[in-house]
Amino acid sequence: MATSFSDRLAAAIRTKRTPVVVGLDPRFESLPEALRKPAKKMAWAGRAAGYKTFCQGVIDVVAPLVPAVKPQIAFFEQLGIVGLAALNHVIAHARQRGLLVIVDAKRNDIGSTAEAYAEAFFGANSDWRADALTVSPYLGDDSLTPFVDAARHNGGGLFVLVKTSNPGGGQLQDLVSDGKPLYQHVARHVERLAAEDAGPTGYGSVGAVVGATYPAQLAELRSAMPHSWLLIPGYGSQGATAKDVAAGFDASGLGAIVNNSRGIIFAHQRKEYSHFGPDRWQSAVEAATKDMIAALAAETPAGKLA
Amino acid sequence: MATSFSDRLAAAIRTKRTPVVVGLDPRFESLPEALRKPAKKMAWAGRAAGYKTFCQGVIDVVAPLVPAVKPQIAFFEQLGIVGLAALNHVIAHARQRGLLVIVDAKRNDIGSTAEAYAEAFFGANSDWRADALTVSPYLGDDSLTPFVDAARHNGGGLFVLVKTSNPGGGQLQDLVSDGKPLYQHVARHVERLAAEDAGPTGYGSVGAVVGATYPAQLAELRSAMPHSWLLIPGYGSQGATAKDVAAGFDASGLGAIVNNSRGIIFAHQRKEYSHFGPDRWQSAVEAATKDMIAALAAETPAGKLA
Repeated sequence: MATSFSDRLAAAIRTKRTPVVVGLDPRFESLPEALRKPAKKMAWAGRAAGYKTFCQGVIDVVAPLVPAVKPQIAFFEQLGIVGLAALNHVIAHARQRGLLVIVDAKRNDIGSTAEAYAEAFFGANSDWRADALTVSPYLGDDSLTPFVDAARHNGGGLFVLVKTSNPGGGQLQDLVSDGKPLYQHVARHVERLAAEDAGPTGYGSVGAVVGATYPAQLAELRSAMPHSWLLIPGYGSQGATAKDVAAGFDASGLGAIVNNSRGIIFAHQRKEYSHFGPDRWQSAVEAATKDMIAALAAETPAGKLA
Repeated sequence: MATSFSDRLAAAIRTKRTPVVVGLDPRFESLPEALRKPAKKMAWAGRAAGYKTFCQGVIDVVAPLVPAVKPQIAFFEQLGIVGLAALNHVIAHARQRGLLVIVDAKRNDIGSTAEAYAEAFFGANSDWRADALTVSPYLGDDSLTPFVDAARHNGGGLFVLVKTSNPGGGQLQDLVSDGKPLYQHVARHVERLAAEDAGPTGYGSVGAVVGATYPAQLAELRSAMPHSWLLIPGYGSQGATAKDVAAGFDASGLGAIVNNSRGIIFAHQRKEYSHFGPDRWQSAVEAATKDMIAALAAETPAGKLA
C-alpha cells in the first residue's frame, strides 16, 4: 500500500511550511511575450510548446517554496492532443521537482465509466498521473466510489466540489433541503468518506473544494468536516484575501491548502511586480509566491506550521 | 451562423426514422477476440488501435441506421494520449459517415476555464469536434454560459445532466428544495435556455440527460421541458425497456434520443446474438441496432417518424 495522500500532503506542507498551491492555468494571451512569439506561427503545437516551457519555468521557481501545484486540465485539453501531451511533460517535471500534483479535472460519471476516469489519473500507466484529482458530486455517491477506491489504492487523494468560488455556484449549491443547503449534504458525504481512512494527521484521502470567496461557509465547513482536507480556490484574482481563508485551517495550521493561479503565474502582469519587466517573469512568480506565503503566515493559522 | 444542432438532429432523426443513438464505450475486455489479440502485446498503444478499429467498425454498420453516435471520452482518456488520438480518428470517421457526434464528457468548470473546455469540443481546431457535448450542472448557471455560447455559435448542442440513470443519482438529485427535487431546479434552468433559441422544430440547443431507469421522472420532465431535447441513457444493459422511454417523446416522435452502448456494440456477447460467432461481431451490432429501432418504433411515439 502506498503512503496515503493525506500523510504525503501533510508532510509536504510541514516541509515547505506553507499551504500555498500554485495553479497552472496557462492562457496563451497571458504568457510572457517571449513565449508567445514563436507560438503564434505554429498554431496548437506552438502554443502547447509555450505552455510546457512556461509551466516548467513556473515549477522551477515554486518547487522549493510550495508543497503542490494544481494544473487545470481544461487549458491543455483546449489545445487537443498536443496540449495533453504537454501536460504529461508538465506533470512529470513537477513530480521530478518533488511537488505533489493535484489535477483539476472535475471529472465524474457512473460505474465503470468512473473507473475509466479514475484509471486515467491514478493508474500506473497514466499519462497524467495525479497525486490528487478534483471530481464533481452531481451523480451521487456510487459515482464517487470508483474514484475513492482508486485513490486509496494508489495513495492518491480526491477533492470533491462542495462550495465553489464562482458567483453562480449558489444556484444549486445553496438550495435548502431538510433544513440545510445542498453543499452541506455533499459535505456530509465527503466527511464520512474522509473519516473512513483518516490517518495520523487526522485527515483522510477525500477532501472538499470550498471557495475562498465564501468565508462564512468556509468556517462552517471546516467545523463540519474535521477529517477533510479543504482545497480552497478563489484567492487573489477572484478577490479573496488571506483573512478570508483563515477559517479553513485547524488550530495547528493544517487542514487546508490555498490555490492561487493567475495571481502567481501571471504575476508579471500585476502592477506590484511590473518592475521585473517581461523577461524576468520568473522573478515575478517567485516574488508573488513568497508574498502569498507571507500573507498566509501572517493572517492564518498556517503561521504556526513548523 | 451554422445550422442549429436542434435542426440538424431533428433532420437526422427524420431521415433515419429513429431516435436511436449508439454509445461508443470501448472496454478492452469486451472487444471481439480478434481485436484483443494484437493489443495485448502493445499496452496502451495497442489497445488504442483496437478501440479505433472497433469503433470505426461499429460506425460502418450503424451509420446507415441511426442519426448519431455518442463516444464516451472516459474510455479513451483511460488510455492517455494515444487513446485520445484514437478518439480523434473515431470522431472523424463518424462525421465522414454522416453521423452526428455527441461527446459524452460531463465537463464543467467556472468562467474562462469553462470557455477552454467549450473550445476543446466546439472550436474550429478541436481534435474532438462535437456536434453536442454533455455537461454537469453542479457549478451553477454561470458555469454553463460559456458552453451555451460556444454551442450556439458553432451550431452545437448541449445535454446538461438532470436526472442520471445510476442507482445513486438520487442522493443529491432527489433532494427536495422549495417543494421540488433538485433535478427539477436544474430542469427549469435548462428549459429556460432551450426556449431562448428554440427553432422550427420547437426545440433549442440546450437539452437534458434524463435516465430511462426513472420512467416516471422522464414523463414529468418531458412535460416540464417542452423545448428541451432529452438524451436518454440507461436503455438495455442498465435495465430500461422501450416502454420505459416512451414518455420521453412528444406526440410526433421527436424530442428524445435514446442511447444504447454495451447492448449494441458488444451484442456479440449477448445470448440473442451469439449465433453470429465472434468473427461476425459486426452482424451482431447490426442486428441489435435494428432490433432496438424496431422496439422503439413499436412501443413509443418514435413509430410515427416518417
